[in-house]
Amino acid sequence: MAALRVQIRPGAYYDSVVLMQLQRALASLPGVLDAGVVMGTQANKAVLQPSGLLTPEIEVASADDLVIAVRGEDEGAALAALDQVDHLIANRRSNSVEQDFLPRSVESALQMLPQAGWVLVSVAGRYAAGVARQALNSGRHVFLYSDNVSLDEEVALKQTASEKNLLVMGPDCGTAIVNGVGLGFANQVRRGPIGLVAASGTGLQQVSARIHQLGSGITQAFGTGGRDLSEAVGAVTAHQALDLLARDPETQVIVLVSKPPAPRVAEGLLTAARATGKPVVVDFIGYLGRSVDNLHFAVTFDQAAELAVGLALSRPSHANALLLGSERLGPGQKYLRGLFSGGTLAYEALLLLQDYVPAVFSNAPLDKRYRLADAMVSQGHTVVDLGADEFTVGRLHPMMDNDLRIRRLRQEAVDPETATILIDVVLGHGAHADPAGELAPVISAIRAAAGQSGRYLPVVAVVVGTDEDPQGMAAQIEQLTNAGAQVETSNEAAARLVGRFLRALCPDQQTTSPNPVDISVLRQPLAAINVGLESFTASLQAQGAEAVQVDWRPPAGGNERLMAVLERLKRNRP
Amino acid sequence: MAALRVQIRPGAYYDSVVLMQLQRALASLPGVLDAGVVMGTQANKAVLQPSGLLTPEIEVASADDLVIAVRGEDEGAALAALDQVDHLIANRRSNSVEQDFLPRSVESALQMLPQAGWVLVSVAGRYAAGVARQALNSGRHVFLYSDNVSLDEEVALKQTASEKNLLVMGPDCGTAIVNGVGLGFANQVRRGPIGLVAASGTGLQQVSARIHQLGSGITQAFGTGGRDLSEAVGAVTAHQALDLLARDPETQVIVLVSKPPAPRVAEGLLTAARATGKPVVVDFIGYLGRSVDNLHFAVTFDQAAELAVGLALSRPSHANALLLGSERLGPGQKYLRGLFSGGTLAYEALLLLQDYVPAVFSNAPLDKRYRLADAMVSQGHTVVDLGADEFTVGRLHPMMDNDLRIRRLRQEAVDPETATILIDVVLGHGAHADPAGELAPVISAIRAAAGQSGRYLPVVAVVVGTDEDPQGMAAQIEQLTNAGAQVETSNEAAARLVGRFLRALCPDQQTTSPNPVDISVLRQPLAAINVGLESFTASLQAQGAEAVQVDWRPPAGGNERLMAVLERLKRNRP
Repeated sequence: MAALRVQIRPGAYYDSVVLMQLQRALASLPGVLDAGVVMGTQANKAVLQPSGLLTPEIEVASADDLVIAVRGEDEGAALAALDQVDHLIANRRSNSVEQDFLPRSVESALQMLPQAGWVLVSVAGRYAAGVARQALNSGRHVFLYSDNVSLDEEVALKQTASEKNLLVMGPDCGTAIVNGVGLGFANQVRRGPIGLVAASGTGLQQVSARIHQLGSGITQAFGTGGRDLSEAVGAVTAHQALDLLARDPETQVIVLVSKPPAPRVAEGLLTAARATGKPVVVDFIGYLGRSVDNLHFAVTFDQAAELAVGLALSRPSHANALLLGSERLGPGQKYLRGLFSGGTLAYEALLLLQDYVPAVFSNAPLDKRYRLADAMVSQGHTVVDLGADEFTVGRLHPMMDNDLRIRRLRQEAVDPETATILIDVVLGHGAHADPAGELAPVISAIRAAAGQSGRYLPVVAVVVGTDEDPQGMAAQIEQLTNAGAQVETSNEAAARLVGRFLRALCPDQQTTSPNPVDISVLRQPLAAINVGLESFTASLQAQGAEAVQVDWRPPAGGNERLMAVLERLKRNRP
Repeated sequence: MAALRVQIRPGAYYDSVVLMQLQRALASLPGVLDAGVVMGTQANKAVLQPSGLLTPEIEVASADDLVIAVRGEDEGAALAALDQVDHLIANRRSNSVEQDFLPRSVESALQMLPQAGWVLVSVAGRYAAGVARQALNSGRHVFLYSDNVSLDEEVALKQTASEKNLLVMGPDCGTAIVNGVGLGFANQVRRGPIGLVAASGTGLQQVSARIHQLGSGITQAFGTGGRDLSEAVGAVTAHQALDLLARDPETQVIVLVSKPPAPRVAEGLLTAARATGKPVVVDFIGYLGRSVDNLHFAVTFDQAAELAVGLALSRPSHANALLLGSERLGPGQKYLRGLFSGGTLAYEALLLLQDYVPAVFSNAPLDKRYRLADAMVSQGHTVVDLGADEFTVGRLHPMMDNDLRIRRLRQEAVDPETATILIDVVLGHGAHADPAGELAPVISAIRAAAGQSGRYLPVVAVVVGTDEDPQGMAAQIEQLTNAGAQVETSNEAAARLVGRFLRALCPDQQTTSPNPVDISVLRQPLAAINVGLESFTASLQAQGAEAVQVDWRPPAGGNERLMAVLERLKRNRP
């Protein structure tokens, strides 16, 4: 008859690998039906219960107690298995770490491998902060895999790290890829143009794996730990990592992954992301932000990967913005004058310009505070819809009749405050047969006249059309280009071009990190000290990285009660 | 010395083309420096002002008065030009409409072209509703280009149209493409798999032109007029058009473009869009909605076009969902059981499943109402993160140790309420060396056992990894597939597959339009009657469509005051 027998070892510490191996070894002994080897936490008791391994004795065990339960075919088999426990623990196979001598501390490991820039920590949570602090004090970056580390400890560690210009990835950081070497759990991903910062381990893995599957690759992938973007921690690590990727010339596109962060933290990170000047894909999983300039929002990992790969393939050239030559403007030239025939094109332009300038006046404004007092007279930045109902009583639409727009072009061109003019040229059936034929000579003339008054007047035209339109799109573009206009074929591209130009007139202060991490961390071959799960050392070595395993033991031999006594004694010292 | 001379013609009606041609003819007469010919509205006076063509006489003119202003080199030239006005009006060239006889009414035009399914109306706003009503009464669809039509008239027209299963695009509808023929303003766009519904004329043009530029094309493009999505109108036309595209087998992807609509209207449209079952790209310009199942949100025209083209290229195959075989489930099988090792994979799955089922319980739920009472026991739909801190005290992460998951797989499989199981299998450095090697036999066994109990048990596995991972992604997938699991390589794809499966267990009621428009409107070669701008007839004919121009004249010969009297007399009739 099957029999369940249990052993409780109070206040004993073993690492997780030992417990797993012991459980497996017990379960494979002859006459054993099932075995459970866990620390006596509530969650672990709940795990034992459905397998019928929970006894009243285990119910009262504490979280510091080691619980061993064996169900045998009979009592003899169960008891025989329990007798093997010490033997099995002593004989456990090392996880194939090739290392003759195992140092007992981070310090001695660093003497063996002084070039190690990183310390990986995966010991039980209650010891992890102490080990991490030793690493920081030795001037090493920390990859802190351990979970169950307190928030206070995280805040303190990250403050220390930041002051020392060091990174602490974690706690509860499952994954990172530094210089092509995966730390913790990491997929083997092609090197490429995309850098990642993620507060989510499997999120980082899914995004990086999808990037690889889509044919692209990554420069670096930094984990931050799941709480980094909380209000309490303030995204210290995310900011440091973002700053590193911003400075890394290899990184062309940045992806930021996290569950929705605290609002104030999100704001700070998005500001920093925008200041990188690189395209940043933001996946605050499920959180919708409006894409702004170089920030692109994704709501799923797939979308984030696809967007990043697309952006890396087609990095928008900012060269065309330079063509507008803001340095050639006269001193009083400050404002955009947008003269649209398409109402919704004007609307979209207004919307996009919000990303670049504080206020744009219009006869159809997004915010009624910015309604033009007189639609015929521009104020400040102005975008006017010349096809609005008010203009078309007894008058052809400006897509058919260019008269109104030509008058307005001349009017804006003589205004010394006009810095640039934006127009749309809508082709197609029903529209004017040759709009560029009428507009190009005017653009040419007003630019020349402005030049004679000592003003440089860039004109941007968005041509909406196809190569099959009756006007001939290529010929329309050519006429406008010859007249000196910068031509775009997308309203968004035109609006953003003008937006970047306007922003260049009032440059933001660039923010740089107060405690920048030395960029050489992205250049040196990865070498690391590993404290905790031996499989991580094996994994580093398999990837060709130098690594030293520490044969770490908890203080007081893992006797929790003795350790608590030691801790109290320490605290009571003056 | 330059002289400005003015003529006011009270209560006279001329169409916009006549006014433009007169202005251009006057301006080109010898000795004339500038000319303005407009109806005396406030906006038009404002237009004359910057050109120095506004006089006190014009200031007091009314909106029904025709205003003619000429600035000549001297008084003689200005007066001579004004003397030419009647002659110039009489001699205006017809806009190259090839038509021997011009009927005076919609009715007689329809006798000439009975196959005309459409009437285009572009007469001045105050007459437009009347013409549109005649067209509806003749059983024809209406393209109503005219603006300055009242909201009440729009509501009444659309109600009539809807009752007659007819479409009214507009008022203020600038563009449409029906069966390859552009109405009003329309780009020449390749035919292709994408159908458009737009409350924005130039928005529709920009999106359709970009679709063409990206190499794809459109089936049909319906305009609705800018006010269709207001609360008052209730998106009557947008719903009709959406319903048509839903039923059109040629349309594979639908794009919906509008400025942000009234919230209630948006909700109704999105429900209808979702019910089409086709991928719908929604561009409520600048409005962010979360992509849900077949709804994809874009915030700019460019994004809308890119998304639509991408979706048309890679229409997600629903075939894999069928593989899950919901028809083979036992009667009590109702719930999903998701057993994740990746916390953020679980989080994303929870987020995506919101689109398909009302509530999913979890140990890390999105909404605390759905927290599992006991993480070890599933309730209803459940997604559990087996890597949560509570499970990893003294226990290896489930990405390294499959024991916990295997126990839970067995537990879920014997629950008669389990309809399907979803798991993640995360590969890469640091993870278990062969997770499929341990999980596949269990999947195989639990499926077989369920089969013996008369239950069909589909299992979906998302494999997160790359072809360079140490485990060998292809071999891992093969093991899982051979065990009968449906394998995906994207967490989103896996979650949506399971979501569709769960929704298929409780199908929605399909909503159909109460007044469907006959689908033959998408099949018949376009033929139309045009009332208003002659250039529209010319444009239709240039596109190879049959069209008849109506030589429409306003009631009472355009004498506004006389017309007002007639109107009053009509009203006073019993």
